[in-house]
Amino acid sequence: MIIVMKPKAKQVSIDRVKAIIEEKGLYAHISAGHEVTIIGVVGDKAKLMDQNLAIYDEVDKIVYVTESYKLANKKFHPDPTIVNVGNVTIGGDTTVIMSGPCAVESRQQLLATAHAIKKAGAHILRGGAYKPRTSPYAFQGLEEEGLSYMKEAREETGLPVVCEVTSLDAIESAVKYVDMLQIGARNMQNFYLLKEAGKTDLPVLLKRGLSATIDEWLNAAEYIIAEGNPNVVLCERGIRTFETATRNTLDISAVPAIKAKSHLPIIVDPSHATGVRDYVKPLSMAAVAAGADGLMIETHPDPSTALSDGPQSLSFDQFEVLTEELRPLVTLLGKKL
Amino acid sequence: MIIVMKPKAKQVSIDRVKAIIEEKGLYAHISAGHEVTIIGVVGDKAKLMDQNLAIYDEVDKIVYVTESYKLANKKFHPDPTIVNVGNVTIGGDTTVIMSGPCAVESRQQLLATAHAIKKAGAHILRGGAYKPRTSPYAFQGLEEEGLSYMKEAREETGLPVVCEVTSLDAIESAVKYVDMLQIGARNMQNFYLLKEAGKTDLPVLLKRGLSATIDEWLNAAEYIIAEGNPNVVLCERGIRTFETATRNTLDISAVPAIKAKSHLPIIVDPSHATGVRDYVKPLSMAAVAAGADGLMIETHPDPSTALSDGPQSLSFDQFEVLTEELRPLVTLLGKKL
Amino acid sequence: MIIVMKPKAKQVSIDRVKAIIEEKGLYAHISAGHEVTIIGVVGDKAKLMDQNLAIYDEVDKIVYVTESYKLANKKFHPDPTIVNVGNVTIGGDTTVIMSGPCAVESRQQLLATAHAIKKAGAHILRGGAYKPRTSPYAFQGLEEEGLSYMKEAREETGLPVVCEVTSLDAIESAVKYVDMLQIGARNMQNFYLLKEAGKTDLPVLLKRGLSATIDEWLNAAEYIIAEGNPNVVLCERGIRTFETATRNTLDISAVPAIKAKSHLPIIVDPSHATGVRDYVKPLSMAAVAAGADGLMIETHPDPSTALSDGPQSLSFDQFEVLTEELRPLVTLLGKKL
Amino acid sequence: MIIVMKPKAKQVSIDRVKAIIEEKGLYAHISAGHEVTIIGVVGDKAKLMDQNLAIYDEVDKIVYVTESYKLANKKFHPDPTIVNVGNVTIGGDTTVIMSGPCAVESRQQLLATAHAIKKAGAHILRGGAYKPRTSPYAFQGLEEEGLSYMKEAREETGLPVVCEVTSLDAIESAVKYVDMLQIGARNMQNFYLLKEAGKTDLPVLLKRGLSATIDEWLNAAEYIIAEGNPNVVLCERGIRTFETATRNTLDISAVPAIKAKSHLPIIVDPSHATGVRDYVKPLSMAAVAAGADGLMIETHPDPSTALSDGPQSLSFDQFEVLTEELRPLVTLLGKKL
Repeated sequence: MIIVMKPKAKQVSIDRVKAIIEEKGLYAHISAGHEVTIIGVVGDKAKLMDQNLAIYDEVDKIVYVTESYKLANKKFHPDPTIVNVGNVTIGGDTTVIMSGPCAVESRQQLLATAHAIKKAGAHILRGGAYKPRTSPYAFQGLEEEGLSYMKEAREETGLPVVCEVTSLDAIESAVKYVDMLQIGARNMQNFYLLKEAGKTDLPVLLKRGLSATIDEWLNAAEYIIAEGNPNVVLCERGIRTFETATRNTLDISAVPAIKAKSHLPIIVDPSHATGVRDYVKPLSMAAVAAGADGLMIETHPDPSTALSDGPQSLSFDQFEVLTEELRPLVTLLGKKL
Repeated sequence: MIIVMKPKAKQVSIDRVKAIIEEKGLYAHISAGHEVTIIGVVGDKAKLMDQNLAIYDEVDKIVYVTESYKLANKKFHPDPTIVNVGNVTIGGDTTVIMSGPCAVESRQQLLATAHAIKKAGAHILRGGAYKPRTSPYAFQGLEEEGLSYMKEAREETGLPVVCEVTSLDAIESAVKYVDMLQIGARNMQNFYLLKEAGKTDLPVLLKRGLSATIDEWLNAAEYIIAEGNPNVVLCERGIRTFETATRNTLDISAVPAIKAKSHLPIIVDPSHATGVRDYVKPLSMAAVAAGADGLMIETHPDPSTALSDGPQSLSFDQFEVLTEELRPLVTLLGKKL
Repeated sequence: MIIVMKPKAKQVSIDRVKAIIEEKGLYAHISAGHEVTIIGVVGDKAKLMDQNLAIYDEVDKIVYVTESYKLANKKFHPDPTIVNVGNVTIGGDTTVIMSGPCAVESRQQLLATAHAIKKAGAHILRGGAYKPRTSPYAFQGLEEEGLSYMKEAREETGLPVVCEVTSLDAIESAVKYVDMLQIGARNMQNFYLLKEAGKTDLPVLLKRGLSATIDEWLNAAEYIIAEGNPNVVLCERGIRTFETATRNTLDISAVPAIKAKSHLPIIVDPSHATGVRDYVKPLSMAAVAAGADGLMIETHPDPSTALSDGPQSLSFDQFEVLTEELRPLVTLLGKKL
Repeated sequence: MIIVMKPKAKQVSIDRVKAIIEEKGLYAHISAGHEVTIIGVVGDKAKLMDQNLAIYDEVDKIVYVTESYKLANKKFHPDPTIVNVGNVTIGGDTTVIMSGPCAVESRQQLLATAHAIKKAGAHILRGGAYKPRTSPYAFQGLEEEGLSYMKEAREETGLPVVCEVTSLDAIESAVKYVDMLQIGARNMQNFYLLKEAGKTDLPVLLKRGLSATIDEWLNAAEYIIAEGNPNVVLCERGIRTFETATRNTLDISAVPAIKAKSHLPIIVDPSHATGVRDYVKPLSMAAVAAGADGLMIETHPDPSTALSDGPQSLSFDQFEVLTEELRPLVTLLGKKL
């Protein structure tokens, strides 16, 4: 932590900050510059947690030189984390494809999808039973009934299943049916939910919030890991910008940035990122080429009747074409699909 | 709802969309333009809820001409809503000042603050007992203990009290102690929480999400009202942009925009919006001048030791100066402080 | 300038950075922290301009502790700058109102507007003769003919006139006709144009770019001042965000932020910021209450036929109502209209 | 063009809009819906250019159903445009690599770079002789001297050269030395400059503005083409968002979006998009996989002494590694490097 004083700060102001630092048993390293004095804090800065140094006279700014997340930080955990979801391994040498409908609508719809995506080479079935929808009048999901179809689909196909949870109730139901919990973008800073997910034994897929920085996202992962659950997979799904040609803006740079800052696996969801079916294939190719550990792709037996996000869903045929095109790219990069 | 077809769309594509609309008992008004054909849907478009018309061949885009929120919509409820919080009325002729610490830290801190803000003219005491913090290692709040101090502060001063809730557990505790529930920015689209708040008898202060549009914000209010609780007050607290000179960007236009679109009261929180104490007074003045129904201002007995958001908190003296300066402005605008 | 090394940086990496700093005749202050070493640079950091220290091994980040703008910086020029435009003074005790049509369309339109706004109390006439328009097929302005009407309007009414310039050609014409040059948002980082404006004797109204930070905006002002022209007035006109209820998002915090960082006057343009006529009055009130030195408001004899930005223009009657409502507010704040 | 009236609009308001449309010789198609009436305009809407229909009573909004750009629009020009730059073809079956220093610093630096990038397989040499820099005190470029080195580098290596122009003066100089003009991000809406570039015979590389929408970007291209110069290549270089881990956010979706909307080639600049050298390779791979027609990559003989943008520049060795890794990917996609 570095405290930058205002230009020409009085000695008494500098001494006051120094005194507070030393009172906590830390060492204040004073560097008197041409225009400004800076004070470096040497020692465990956690001891300063209950002090807002920014409040003192003539303090200009505080610069944090270390990240607040530790367990999710590559600096303290250099080896990549491998997350097991049922019999599937994320973060290793397989490019993992999760696919399925945005919302579970019926037993038949889900089972048909599960078989189709398995045939095309997907590894994990996704499906929403609790749908966070902007309007209260939109379809909100089948809830536990949907979860039971997820379980049945796993039993029929052998594919592990992942489902979004939006409350403690939903977590308590989901752990009985699914292999992985998903925390959605709108709940990325629902810290209560993160802690509850961290108390379960299931791996957690943590989507990035619509306007979350990468730093906040890794802090959200830290909440889960700090509760004892290290099995977190990050999912980039687009951030909110002024551009309206796509539903969100896929932040492809997040892939190398997460790889540089964290040991957690990262997958990409081009369906939600763009909201446009025709852009799903090029962005899937891009995500894999950028080094993503996997993809999450929406599919539906009949996208024209999907109760949620139809315009971005692929039909089974389109999904099969996608996996066929991804295969040689994945191979070229030395991985498996 | 208007369906815009792609330029030179084939008649068969147009007919297909028309057929789907008519199948639902609606009327499709075809307007064949110079370059494009547009199809207006006449009738209750809710009947089309299970159809994604955007998916059909040669459909270019769907334009929604009516908002999805109804209960929060001024079009269907032209008179302004007045919300009572204890003996305080929000949305009427009083400019309501809520004030208090970001986080309740101790009984003494809260009681001292309650007395000080009352003396300066504030109407409602705020204080956080459940703190959503970016890092799991930051102070998370005193929880129920904090709520009990809130109640005590109300008994001592007569000021109604408002506290943020972050889970169903927190709601269940809070209803026993406070006069108003707050849903924070990070939970604005925690739809589960919105519904639970909507089931209580307490008025709800709904902060705008960090990257929420005004439309989404009003849809979030709709979730609460749709559960039977019409007492919603909106709070603009800054949105996320590229600017870094302030913590967030206060969207002052939200005040007239909400007044144009909704009947709900709106207050402004310049403390969180800027994160800079020196900007709190000018932005408070601006918010009141723009027509806001109230303000939420952070105060602390000793901002330099605040456990949360110290740099933006006002001392008691600074708060008193602020209310003194606001008073003639409020009077000029024909309201009371 | 502070160089933050990566955690556990090797001594050889630290020594290398130190050597480069000292080679330039500066002093490197080493502060070896618990996790990271930071190096403070003492001396005139301009000597390091040709060095990219960020490139060296194990350098984590460079923190600039002083702003790159000097002439526009309040730290080095604490007294507020007063800018004279004809007989009008901006930055003093008058809240200056600039008004007029987005585009000069005809002699008659401009003269009618000039008389109407003068009657309502405006101080300066604005009007665009060179219009930067998104589409090449939209009306591009009357150019020199428009400038001649501006001059005629000044002669008839005595109001000084301001006109946007978009090229060196336009500057060369404008200096013959107008009292103040305007650099528009889209040209805020057209550094060539800034320099050319800086070489003239006319005061310059510098609008903020659509996605410019406050720091970049002040650096743009620095370009003008560095050419010898200190008469710069800043104009906040909204920034680009994800919100679509308004054309842009008025960054009201820019008013106190500019007052804190610079000595230059700042005015606010609520017409372009919102694009909605009904929001012009509340945001004008807000801007004045926040401490703005003036306003720029679009007016038109018949907004329904305006060739540019009609939906946000006020009619003469509406403008007169606005100035009537502003007057007591300005008086309350101890200023004149 | 569709005019949406407010709910329950009075017949007189509807009739007024209808009358204005018909007065211009167009046909107004009235569609009276359940809640709102919409009016479709049939005929050449250019005739309505001097009318702001949004201004009339009870008009809610205007929906444009056709884009304002025509010459850059795929709808009216379905075949992809191939742009020749010297002997290099952009938009065909070659993935074109442009590379070179951000700023031309010396004859030696440029020639060394030209030889190195040619050896590694690049097709076009880039180099800035006119540098738009945030601060007036930063290095502004060698101007015509720099252009002469560009020409010399072309003569020595045979590589065509591209250089940014920032004024009419710069264009007049550049056409004597280079093979392609670049319009930088900060000048994307410098419409004067766009027109002047459109009057030359050289192909133009048009970078996307920092906060430009794809629609605005294509309108900027329209300015160039409308002057008679159809040889425009678009370059995505990152947009401005709240994320600070990268300098900008590379909008990878712009690649398929431009391919869907326009016939113009698009290349990607991962160096400026991220500002982080380590992210250049993964994002180059991503851009090519997403379908980009080429890349622009910054290289420098000694990035640690680069006068501009050193931290994102690749050394010659790093650049050679990059092209080696790109080659099999390009081949897999059926193109040539």
